[in-house]
Amino acid sequence: MAGYAMGRDDLLARLRRVEGQVRGLQRMVEEERYCIDVLTQVNSAVAALRAVGMGLLDDHVRHCVRDSIRADGGDEKVEELVNAVARFAN
Amino acid sequence: MAGYAMGRDDLLARLRRVEGQVRGLQRMVEEERYCIDVLTQVNSAVAALRAVGMGLLDDHVRHCVRDSIRADGGDEKVEELVNAVARFAN
Amino acid sequence: MAGYAMGRDDLLARLRRVEGQVRGLQRMVEEERYCIDVLTQVNSAVAALRAVGMGLLDDHVRHCVRDSIRADGGDEKVEELVNAVARFAN
Amino acid sequence: MAGYAMGRDDLLARLRRVEGQVRGLQRMVEEERYCIDVLTQVNSAVAALRAVGMGLLDDHVRHCVRDSIRADGGDEKVEELVNAVARFAN
Repeated sequence: MAGYAMGRDDLLARLRRVEGQVRGLQRMVEEERYCIDVLTQVNSAVAALRAVGMGLLDDHVRHCVRDSIRADGGDEKVEELVNAVARFAN
Repeated sequence: MAGYAMGRDDLLARLRRVEGQVRGLQRMVEEERYCIDVLTQVNSAVAALRAVGMGLLDDHVRHCVRDSIRADGGDEKVEELVNAVARFAN
Repeated sequence: MAGYAMGRDDLLARLRRVEGQVRGLQRMVEEERYCIDVLTQVNSAVAALRAVGMGLLDDHVRHCVRDSIRADGGDEKVEELVNAVARFAN
Repeated sequence: MAGYAMGRDDLLARLRRVEGQVRGLQRMVEEERYCIDVLTQVNSAVAALRAVGMGLLDDHVRHCVRDSIRADGGDEKVEELVNAVARFAN
């Protein structure tokens, strides 16, 4: 079990809100709303998803990586973390 | 009517796929899947949403901005576009 | 002649400041300063360079793209702009 | 002493190359080169700086953070790291 630090309930609540934003985007496109207004909503959904990603990374460092460094030096976890940060940060 | 260049149907299909990804993320969190795997899916949903944003911007330049430059010089639309790009690019 | 809107002098002043930041970074590395402090300076130089990029894009839309839309419809310039925005925004 | 993992010499060589890119950008602006070409060079300098930042983060996790987790649990370092990643990833 992972036991996310941000809290599983908080993560789920955020993801449900993002799902609502994405459904809202579909309605905006169906109603042929003004591009720039749709884009503003896209940016907002991206920011919300990135906050979820940041919460996952935060949790991962505080738990998995720390535990693994204590247990066996954490070489593999540290390598994996650095790669994950690189992909997340683009 | 906006008449998106990427095609309303293409935009909607992409947004429905993002909605599916976000629901998949909720399942992953409920099942307490490994943080790094969840994060990989977050990155994938972010990339899909940004592609939608890029399609909207593309369309906006090709249509609204161009029409408005032809009609009245487009001062306002150009200003708005530059601000939208700045927000989109962070 | 391009005649940048942000002003050639403003662009040059900003780029000289970035050059100074990058030289400052070299000194920090030579003095083996704390990683997180060096990283903060890297972020600051990246932000300064992105502001220069945003200024160039702004200028490009206001001048080249607009002139070309007026002259010949601007198909090529619009295509090029959209690609440039996509690369800039990653 | 920090003792960067990417290697102080590698970091310095990369930063000197970025300095050269930024000076090249100044020349391009002085010669009023085409905006999109200048922008391409800006993107390239940003990517080079971000690679330096990624190298610093990588090193920081492998050394400072790991040592501190082993020594005292690393609460402070982990907090600081997560904040640094958030700023780096925007």
